[in-house]
Amino acid sequence: MMRWIHAAGAALLVLACSATRADEGMWTFHGFPLERANTTLKTKLDQAWLDRVRRATVRLSNCTGSFVSGEGLVLTNHHCVVSCLAELSSKEKSLVDDGFLARDRASEKKCQTQVADVLTEMEDVTAKVNAATAGKSDQAANEARKAELTKLESACEAQSKFKCQAVTLYQGGQYWLYKYKRYTDVRIAFAPEGSIAAFGGDPDNFQFPRWCLDMSVLRVYENGKPAKTPDFLKINFAGPADGDPVLVSGHPGTTNRLLTVAELKWQRNMNLPNWLLRYSELRGRYIQFSEESPDNARIVSDQIQTVENQIKVRRKQLDALLEDQLFERKLAEEKSLRAYVAANDELRATIGDPWTEIEKVQAEYAGNWLPVLFIEQAGGFQGRLATYARALVRGAAERGKPNDQRFREFTDAALPRIEQQLGASVPVYPELEKLRLAFGLERMREWLGPDHPVVRQLLSKESPTELADRLVSGTKLADPAVRMALWKGGEAAIAASDDPMIVMARDIEPTARKLRKEFEDNVEAPIDLASEKIARARFAALGTSVYPDATFTLRLNWGKVGGWVENGKPVHPFTRLQGLFDRATGAEPFKVPDSWVAVRDQLDKDTLFNLVTNNDIVGGNSGSPLISAKGEVVGLLFDGNIHSISGSYWFDTEKNRAVAVHPAIMREALTKVYKADALLKEMSAK
Amino acid sequence: MMRWIHAAGAALLVLACSATRADEGMWTFHGFPLERANTTLKTKLDQAWLDRVRRATVRLSNCTGSFVSGEGLVLTNHHCVVSCLAELSSKEKSLVDDGFLARDRASEKKCQTQVADVLTEMEDVTAKVNAATAGKSDQAANEARKAELTKLESACEAQSKFKCQAVTLYQGGQYWLYKYKRYTDVRIAFAPEGSIAAFGGDPDNFQFPRWCLDMSVLRVYENGKPAKTPDFLKINFAGPADGDPVLVSGHPGTTNRLLTVAELKWQRNMNLPNWLLRYSELRGRYIQFSEESPDNARIVSDQIQTVENQIKVRRKQLDALLEDQLFERKLAEEKSLRAYVAANDELRATIGDPWTEIEKVQAEYAGNWLPVLFIEQAGGFQGRLATYARALVRGAAERGKPNDQRFREFTDAALPRIEQQLGASVPVYPELEKLRLAFGLERMREWLGPDHPVVRQLLSKESPTELADRLVSGTKLADPAVRMALWKGGEAAIAASDDPMIVMARDIEPTARKLRKEFEDNVEAPIDLASEKIARARFAALGTSVYPDATFTLRLNWGKVGGWVENGKPVHPFTRLQGLFDRATGAEPFKVPDSWVAVRDQLDKDTLFNLVTNNDIVGGNSGSPLISAKGEVVGLLFDGNIHSISGSYWFDTEKNRAVAVHPAIMREALTKVYKADALLKEMSAK
Repeated sequence: MMRWIHAAGAALLVLACSATRADEGMWTFHGFPLERANTTLKTKLDQAWLDRVRRATVRLSNCTGSFVSGEGLVLTNHHCVVSCLAELSSKEKSLVDDGFLARDRASEKKCQTQVADVLTEMEDVTAKVNAATAGKSDQAANEARKAELTKLESACEAQSKFKCQAVTLYQGGQYWLYKYKRYTDVRIAFAPEGSIAAFGGDPDNFQFPRWCLDMSVLRVYENGKPAKTPDFLKINFAGPADGDPVLVSGHPGTTNRLLTVAELKWQRNMNLPNWLLRYSELRGRYIQFSEESPDNARIVSDQIQTVENQIKVRRKQLDALLEDQLFERKLAEEKSLRAYVAANDELRATIGDPWTEIEKVQAEYAGNWLPVLFIEQAGGFQGRLATYARALVRGAAERGKPNDQRFREFTDAALPRIEQQLGASVPVYPELEKLRLAFGLERMREWLGPDHPVVRQLLSKESPTELADRLVSGTKLADPAVRMALWKGGEAAIAASDDPMIVMARDIEPTARKLRKEFEDNVEAPIDLASEKIARARFAALGTSVYPDATFTLRLNWGKVGGWVENGKPVHPFTRLQGLFDRATGAEPFKVPDSWVAVRDQLDKDTLFNLVTNNDIVGGNSGSPLISAKGEVVGLLFDGNIHSISGSYWFDTEKNRAVAVHPAIMREALTKVYKADALLKEMSAK
Repeated sequence: MMRWIHAAGAALLVLACSATRADEGMWTFHGFPLERANTTLKTKLDQAWLDRVRRATVRLSNCTGSFVSGEGLVLTNHHCVVSCLAELSSKEKSLVDDGFLARDRASEKKCQTQVADVLTEMEDVTAKVNAATAGKSDQAANEARKAELTKLESACEAQSKFKCQAVTLYQGGQYWLYKYKRYTDVRIAFAPEGSIAAFGGDPDNFQFPRWCLDMSVLRVYENGKPAKTPDFLKINFAGPADGDPVLVSGHPGTTNRLLTVAELKWQRNMNLPNWLLRYSELRGRYIQFSEESPDNARIVSDQIQTVENQIKVRRKQLDALLEDQLFERKLAEEKSLRAYVAANDELRATIGDPWTEIEKVQAEYAGNWLPVLFIEQAGGFQGRLATYARALVRGAAERGKPNDQRFREFTDAALPRIEQQLGASVPVYPELEKLRLAFGLERMREWLGPDHPVVRQLLSKESPTELADRLVSGTKLADPAVRMALWKGGEAAIAASDDPMIVMARDIEPTARKLRKEFEDNVEAPIDLASEKIARARFAALGTSVYPDATFTLRLNWGKVGGWVENGKPVHPFTRLQGLFDRATGAEPFKVPDSWVAVRDQLDKDTLFNLVTNNDIVGGNSGSPLISAKGEVVGLLFDGNIHSISGSYWFDTEKNRAVAVHPAIMREALTKVYKADALLKEMSAK
């Protein structure tokens, strides 16, 4: 599953969002090349089509979805709601394993930490941001830019009902204010059993052929009632034919297609190996934890799925970066752009040599990134409880400042979401918390060394396990009421607290802030400036017919249904239900649920199940609708093939494929397996 | 600790042993450049000195040791005997944690799977081997060479009491028959507590300054009595001064200093990342397993120490291979040698282009190595029980063949050691066996994919965990009597067995053999031939003043006591006892044992503890004596600094350092902490 990866630090470390040009592309709705699309696809898409699709596309906290009824039904993936299902489960009943169907609307259950955003307006604020930073040094410009973005968001929210978010595109080439209608009451209406949603599990993840009913249905509410959503997409249960044009509307998370060679080498040599070593070990700890009891298995299943997915993504990213050809291509591109700048007197004078500047900053940073990773980005302080403690300690201090001087994640615009998460009544499992915190502390000691001051500060008397046990056993932060009291109590309450988790977060806060400040001034600011210069050079050389790197904001791209050639053999673009039963072994993760086995004879084995297209997608697109030229849903995106992972760095037209659930299997399953007649009827409306 | 890494497949996959020239060097005793050493060190070493040092050096199954008394005492590292200590431990008493001191000789306990070899004679058999392979194709030469080596070993053992081993040096440039006096009765006399032997644990491993009493004392027996070992080394408890010349005699395991660029890229892109991902996960499983109970912690502590050590080694090897400079150096060396060949008509005609040949073979192999790794090299079948089953199934078939047609690991010369291991009464822990086997099976499915025939064969009805549980619960192979009965019963007994572990090993045996045959014919044979040609080119270009890559055979090298400069700061070459107490935290792995705390006031805090030298060592050298020009032991090698790990690929004169236990702390500890007066007296004899 191409879950969006938002590992600690991704937001800080992925500094260079840039632009590229090709027939692939993650186009914004305000920059979509309608004519080019219509020429390529032989379609007649128009602005009204774009507007309707945009208003029918939903951004979840981690995924995409689409409205499929006028009363708020959202179609998305099962893997996008699995943490909600886990939160709603108990020792007696696992909604992840057993699935969930609300027989009526009153039975729909709230996902406490979910939100649903619909992009309603987009305003270009580039001129305002540039005015705020003009003439400033890189450090000062960095701070002024953040302050301006905060001000723009606050002003927007003050004068509208929208959730306003400043968006950086083209590596600072453009700034936009995106205005969302936000739904904070999101409930689960349907999810199948985990074993059919993720049939094949980790072994089949990012593979094709596939047989996954990776679907779920949510409903958004307003004022306690199903929201009115007139702009919804009709589902065409017949689906598309091989070769049909299809569009994907959604929120690709992150791409790094135009990082410099120096930045890519840092990813290859430092960031990816470090991450993979740590999370492979965590995978092992989780698996062994799950073996200890059925209850443990339930508690940790969501984490295992997440970490295994991330490992597969990062492993294939590393593979891509270890290919000589990729670096040869990137070097050639960089050389050509540098030559363009060198040949242009005016450009050369204003831009200088930002590539060497980035290389220099990266080389200096190479010696200093581990403390940032483990302390400021909390790689050493894992688990829900430590995360709560950081949010409370830091939030108290930040809220004491004027809005535009705060860290961007604690501005007024950001606070409601933080409060939703702090106040949510979600289960906290002490044994799992101990595991995660001990793991983080132990690896912090490994990578920073036993002589690092923070390691000495925390671990000079206790081992990582002892410290984690004491903090988790002693803290009261598992209780949402305690968290909200501390949140409301602000700086005074934090200063007075003797909760051991708060005490630890408080103790390391000065070091964490110092590391962040150094990072922002010495790494982020100069790299941002240099990257902006490179973006300028690229605009000059290649014009504006380019799309920005993915940033988990709304994008649209086109492609068509079709397989590819693997090791000389063609891969057919569709699978059918019979293949599911052929592949089943009876043991997880290849076990067909009892509900399907029970009605096996009644099922039409020719029903189309999954399909592939050549759309350009990455994690964050999960749950995106596959849309026909008529504007109908003809598939539900849930994965890419194995070659799609290198899409972080470039788009391989030959082999990169998106994987979707076919609408026919949704109807077959809802009708015959789940007997969800009311739901299916609502999803079949026009 | 620089344990010798002998991961599955290392022997098969490390194909190119080559030679290099520099002032560093792992010299054989028959090729030691006495004059050069004496000139460099300003010493007067002679052949008698060499002979005595050779006869006083001991090869253990995994390490090095040296005789330090005339009655068979062997000084080596604690980490070389930790598996013996674990085998001798019980639920009630952990010799790993608590240490062990035999108050008299009758109390010395046998290490059941240990042997001790002393290199007694060396015979050059190059001409005989070359005669056997002359005029044959690469596949036929590969088989003829193995058959000839087997014949030479058998003939040697038939006409002497020696353990005879054929040794390939200089990548087939030379073949030798090494003749060892073998002791199979090896007993433990002394080991300190694990917490002082490995003080600092994994965090401090490969670091310096250090405070590890990583020592142990074994005794070899003959006919039930302490063996007479007149050629022993006197310990000089005063140790060496900064700058003193020191020599290291021992058995470096493996170096890859002259692999081709294509071979190094294979290591960097495939072998090391795959290994690190899998064993980082295993580390996590082990750690979580050890958290489950104190008994589990004891059972798995040896495995955790081993796997963490190996992870550190491989991680730093990968770091070394990710440095652009290393590849630039290797490319330049290769280019220069290729130019030398190109400029020499005769050489060019006989050698051709072996570099391109290796690149071609590696590229083809890249698609096929995973089945070899998981099935033939047993990456999918981990644990003692699965290893026993493979040895029994394969051993039965091989012993039915003429000696010179068997796999080399089942020749007559190899059988006694296999029988020792099969017959040893060592503990087998079912829960740990299940963990290891399930892990191997699960990762085999991950990397080969659910559709690989062997995966389908084994896992079409059961999950990896279910299969592992059934096999481990059902097998009787934990009982040495059952193993020996199957061994003695030969092919008939194996065919008749319904032991589930035997059944599985039997079922996969045809596929495993087929994979091995393909590997030997299509990868090993052509790469061996090409590597031999490269070695010939190197001899032609550089003459014979070179040393062969490490092969876990006896080597001698010189260096001197001295620190290095780290981040601009000098690292002093000695540590003292006071530093141990300063660094202690009271929690593992920085806990000083109670026995030391109890006598703390009586200890001389100025006692020298550990030291560093610039000798060229790698894993396998563990336990090597540090020898003065006078032929006295002045230290006990147990580790390298972090830079020593890149010694796999090149020797960094500036920073590569060996780490040793100082004799002064051995005497202080044996006297005041352990009150081992009799032992110390014997070790102080002349």
